[in-house]
Amino acid sequence: MKAETIVLNEKRNVTLTAYIQGTGSDFHYVTRRPAVLVLPGGGYQFCSEREADPVASAYLKAGYQTFILRYSVRENAVWPNPLDDYEQAMETIRERAGEWGIYKNKIAVIGFSAGGHLAAAAATMAKNRPDAAILGYAVTGMDVKGCNPSAPDTTGAVDKDTCPCFLFATRTDNVVPIENSIRFMSALVEAGISFESHIYAYGPHGFSTCDSSVQSIDTEICARVPGWVEDSIGWLRDVLGDFGDGCMTEPICRAHVTGDYDMFLSVDATMRCLMRHPAAGAVIKPMMKKLMQTPGIPKTDGNMEEFVQKMRLRDIMNYVDVPEDEIEELNEKLLKIPNSGL
Amino acid sequence: MKAETIVLNEKRNVTLTAYIQGTGSDFHYVTRRPAVLVLPGGGYQFCSEREADPVASAYLKAGYQTFILRYSVRENAVWPNPLDDYEQAMETIRERAGEWGIYKNKIAVIGFSAGGHLAAAAATMAKNRPDAAILGYAVTGMDVKGCNPSAPDTTGAVDKDTCPCFLFATRTDNVVPIENSIRFMSALVEAGISFESHIYAYGPHGFSTCDSSVQSIDTEICARVPGWVEDSIGWLRDVLGDFGDGCMTEPICRAHVTGDYDMFLSVDATMRCLMRHPAAGAVIKPMMKKLMQTPGIPKTDGNMEEFVQKMRLRDIMNYVDVPEDEIEELNEKLLKIPNSGL
Amino acid sequence: MKAETIVLNEKRNVTLTAYIQGTGSDFHYVTRRPAVLVLPGGGYQFCSEREADPVASAYLKAGYQTFILRYSVRENAVWPNPLDDYEQAMETIRERAGEWGIYKNKIAVIGFSAGGHLAAAAATMAKNRPDAAILGYAVTGMDVKGCNPSAPDTTGAVDKDTCPCFLFATRTDNVVPIENSIRFMSALVEAGISFESHIYAYGPHGFSTCDSSVQSIDTEICARVPGWVEDSIGWLRDVLGDFGDGCMTEPICRAHVTGDYDMFLSVDATMRCLMRHPAAGAVIKPMMKKLMQTPGIPKTDGNMEEFVQKMRLRDIMNYVDVPEDEIEELNEKLLKIPNSGL
Amino acid sequence: MKAETIVLNEKRNVTLTAYIQGTGSDFHYVTRRPAVLVLPGGGYQFCSEREADPVASAYLKAGYQTFILRYSVRENAVWPNPLDDYEQAMETIRERAGEWGIYKNKIAVIGFSAGGHLAAAAATMAKNRPDAAILGYAVTGMDVKGCNPSAPDTTGAVDKDTCPCFLFATRTDNVVPIENSIRFMSALVEAGISFESHIYAYGPHGFSTCDSSVQSIDTEICARVPGWVEDSIGWLRDVLGDFGDGCMTEPICRAHVTGDYDMFLSVDATMRCLMRHPAAGAVIKPMMKKLMQTPGIPKTDGNMEEFVQKMRLRDIMNYVDVPEDEIEELNEKLLKIPNSGL
Repeated sequence: MKAETIVLNEKRNVTLTAYIQGTGSDFHYVTRRPAVLVLPGGGYQFCSEREADPVASAYLKAGYQTFILRYSVRENAVWPNPLDDYEQAMETIRERAGEWGIYKNKIAVIGFSAGGHLAAAAATMAKNRPDAAILGYAVTGMDVKGCNPSAPDTTGAVDKDTCPCFLFATRTDNVVPIENSIRFMSALVEAGISFESHIYAYGPHGFSTCDSSVQSIDTEICARVPGWVEDSIGWLRDVLGDFGDGCMTEPICRAHVTGDYDMFLSVDATMRCLMRHPAAGAVIKPMMKKLMQTPGIPKTDGNMEEFVQKMRLRDIMNYVDVPEDEIEELNEKLLKIPNSGL
Repeated sequence: MKAETIVLNEKRNVTLTAYIQGTGSDFHYVTRRPAVLVLPGGGYQFCSEREADPVASAYLKAGYQTFILRYSVRENAVWPNPLDDYEQAMETIRERAGEWGIYKNKIAVIGFSAGGHLAAAAATMAKNRPDAAILGYAVTGMDVKGCNPSAPDTTGAVDKDTCPCFLFATRTDNVVPIENSIRFMSALVEAGISFESHIYAYGPHGFSTCDSSVQSIDTEICARVPGWVEDSIGWLRDVLGDFGDGCMTEPICRAHVTGDYDMFLSVDATMRCLMRHPAAGAVIKPMMKKLMQTPGIPKTDGNMEEFVQKMRLRDIMNYVDVPEDEIEELNEKLLKIPNSGL
Repeated sequence: MKAETIVLNEKRNVTLTAYIQGTGSDFHYVTRRPAVLVLPGGGYQFCSEREADPVASAYLKAGYQTFILRYSVRENAVWPNPLDDYEQAMETIRERAGEWGIYKNKIAVIGFSAGGHLAAAAATMAKNRPDAAILGYAVTGMDVKGCNPSAPDTTGAVDKDTCPCFLFATRTDNVVPIENSIRFMSALVEAGISFESHIYAYGPHGFSTCDSSVQSIDTEICARVPGWVEDSIGWLRDVLGDFGDGCMTEPICRAHVTGDYDMFLSVDATMRCLMRHPAAGAVIKPMMKKLMQTPGIPKTDGNMEEFVQKMRLRDIMNYVDVPEDEIEELNEKLLKIPNSGL
Repeated sequence: MKAETIVLNEKRNVTLTAYIQGTGSDFHYVTRRPAVLVLPGGGYQFCSEREADPVASAYLKAGYQTFILRYSVRENAVWPNPLDDYEQAMETIRERAGEWGIYKNKIAVIGFSAGGHLAAAAATMAKNRPDAAILGYAVTGMDVKGCNPSAPDTTGAVDKDTCPCFLFATRTDNVVPIENSIRFMSALVEAGISFESHIYAYGPHGFSTCDSSVQSIDTEICARVPGWVEDSIGWLRDVLGDFGDGCMTEPICRAHVTGDYDMFLSVDATMRCLMRHPAAGAVIKPMMKKLMQTPGIPKTDGNMEEFVQKMRLRDIMNYVDVPEDEIEELNEKLLKIPNSGL
């Protein structure tokens, strides 16, 4: 593989290191590769080497082109410098995607601690959004002020265009409180974004891959922690697709968990979304009447309404055993109604 | 192993099935065993066999005595009947602990879906609390009203006596919204309780162990899901201890993540807890002054104060490289001050 | 699940314990289950409980009906008593297969140490052969005389009807020399039988599942050892099939690695097998001529001939890029020639 | 990490590529690193890229410095050219060990297919032996003549100085018959060398790491195969030691499974070794008499003698419950007798 380091900003000492593997030839069915951009942590004071090469190696092995961004730190970390560095890195990768054998729309970002803050910012507020984000014991909320007073909260910035996220951390993180991960998950739920998360019972902050060469074997950290690496690779496969014959396979896991953000309505939209469309109301009314008479669907009280509103119409109908062809018939009708809620 | 089914309540058709393995003899260093009580799901309408024996087998293999409680369902599920069934089961197990070769203080509960609601109720509001709780795609909040209108919210009931919890679910759960797991975690954080959680990117509700004999191999569910079983066994080892020579080893993972609930103060208590004690204030004042002058500890603004208040004194001191012996000296002094906040 | 112990031979104290899980109902697509018969070790002097229930539990969890045979030991172990016990157990299981919800032709046997000897005997010399055999640090050769002078070598008994085998052991086994496993593999190769094997670098004899409840956590044994359990379950799936909708799926892994034991010849037969049939010789002669002229196929000397003779015709043709349709055409012709070598 | 390619032999187009990670600084307790030298396969006709970078990445992630040797192929592969290339590579690595931050005596070699032949040659006949060897679906015997007529059998060359080996392959390998792995294991047993091996039930030749970027996801290959990578990393830790504080920890797994090759006799030597030393005979005679009278030690017949001769004296004594202090007393005496059998 080729290693290349590009100076993105000499004054701020920002560099992008690229590790590029071959395509074609012996890798005969691999015409391009997805990519991972690594954002090491270090409290916006430095970029830790422990969260650079060892992390890149894991995704290299899985077949990804990998990049390490050493972004602006210390006095240069004043916002939005680090985010600008990210934008520049992403633009560089997408511009040179042909030369480097990369799928432009299959570029994930992974960040740790403060680098996790930057990754969360990339996922929620960047112009050049990544296609997936892995957040390792990331600072996502106002706690970031502790190390970089000018850096923004990212949790409040989660929007419908936020990419699928994979979060991991330890419950007992003694530097970045676990609330950072939990609140970010809540925001992802609110926005209907797909995610996976693993919160391990105990272990210190900053364990990186938890290999014995980066985290001392004497550390009190639970044995399941190193599993996040393989889990994240499996998850990337789910959200970006796997290596197929000359192209990537279709992703199994959608970016949004419901159809609420699709161009047209469908039975995969939630009741809340459908109810906002009078045209949809007319279509589903007969079905809803039937549903409400079904035993097992609880009487309407405050809580239940909220509960039902969050369900996808498909799930409700499956729950009361509506035949598959009736579901499809209804779906056909809904697919003709533009989703005005976007 | 011996299988025995005990009728706990004939009228409500409540039974406790015990699977009891040998101790001593060929298992020469195993004098007693920890135990797991399984609470199958089924929307308080039935107790699913898919979440009974296959689950029990996993913990049997790991060396646990296992029990299955088939609790009150349908018209009998009116609260607090199911919780009463649990109390009766736990009392039975603890009463016969000698006969069955069980450590009385090492009994975990595992519940799925509605059974997860019951497990969460056991962990937060029972008289006979379990020593650890595993909550599988559990209903923990008001959503329970959907299947059992009389059943209570358990999230609001999390208290300082709640046992360590292990949660798992899928992000796309189409029956029990993932908010149930996330809000429960938030409550555990608020109460300082230890937990582990795994939220997998996608998969339907009710997958049990996700073995091919309980969940169809055609299911769209992510490949990492079956890992919760081994992960939960590793976690039980962390919070209850492992099989040692004639006794269990000391647990590695504490039930509370800080010293805030210990009988005496210590450097493991949070600043918030310590600040409430004037006697502690006097002890740590000189140290705090020093800390505040340390570069790297950010200037006090609103957010940082909150951040620092949640940190353990030990972590703050480690962060600014206070020598280990100074930390220990301070700890000695704090350990003489009773914790009045309990 | 139901536990039942059947006395097979009162005088010799032989029992068969059955653990039977439900079918149908909540397990709606499981109409029957495959089964595993456990043969604990103990040097034909006793049947170790450490290799009984913990092992059975692992396969119960995976969905198998499981059985434990406590066979004739000590003065009753004189051959063929233990093998007779096995035959009786297998006959009982197959007779009651309907009642117990078992697939008659999907019954595996697993044996440890001396129980591994009995399992190997079952696989190679029994009237009622198992459909798969798992041999744990098994005595397979003359070393068995050390604990049971009347018991036979099983390695020499491997024949074309021997079932697929899964072997595991540690290199440093201090009781049963590792040659037992290696020689048995060699015999399986000679007979063309499918197998999998895992020899771990170090660890003592008799570790069973290597769970902390059966093998002391202080044992010097390599961390990969407990993996044999899940690996063996994956392997059973490969050779017996997986749980499908109302039936088991087709096994992926054939019992014989070549077509040499099929009723008719094919391109999956080895050159050695094909050469024995003059009719086949005529069919493949033109192809062989072509092959021999292909660069890359080495000149015929003694060693190469042996090498080529063991190759399947299909592999030779693939190796020199014979088009798929020519291969199929040839196969059609071979499939008309009865395999006289059986 | 730095990537550097060194031309070892311009005429034969031999290169050594080095991937070098940092030491010290952020990796504060890592002063040096162990190393892995990768020998790709390709039938001595080419060096496959599929068995180069993806393999190197796996060991990079685990903390190893990694190297890829692209050795002499085609007309240049005439023996001993490839072995000479290896010697040159190893000498280069050991010479520059200081500069590259490498432990000179912790350098493993990994080879695939024909590269596995070269690795086996390195392990058994090189001047610069590696400290551990990983052999992937390796050609070890005369089958090598098929692709390189001048290359030697390595199985017959296994000697007491052969390093610990880790072998993996598939039973159904359609290019390199599985006998290659099995016979090599037998030779290692004969020489008392430590090894680990994993033979998977089915899969084609040449799967490399079996990641989806090197082996098509449509391949019929068993799901356990990719596990060899992590298993080999765990094994390297066992035989070379793990990352400790400023140095590697002591290896858990010895290179020889008995004391037969130590400078002095001990209770870890086999009976066969001890019996060759009259001085040892005198020391152990009283003990042996006692052993022979112990019930459970079988009467001496031909087979048993062979069996006992291969046992370590320590194991025999443990087997009949000789007290630990008597064992130690005997050991003290034996440790004074030089081992003349070396």
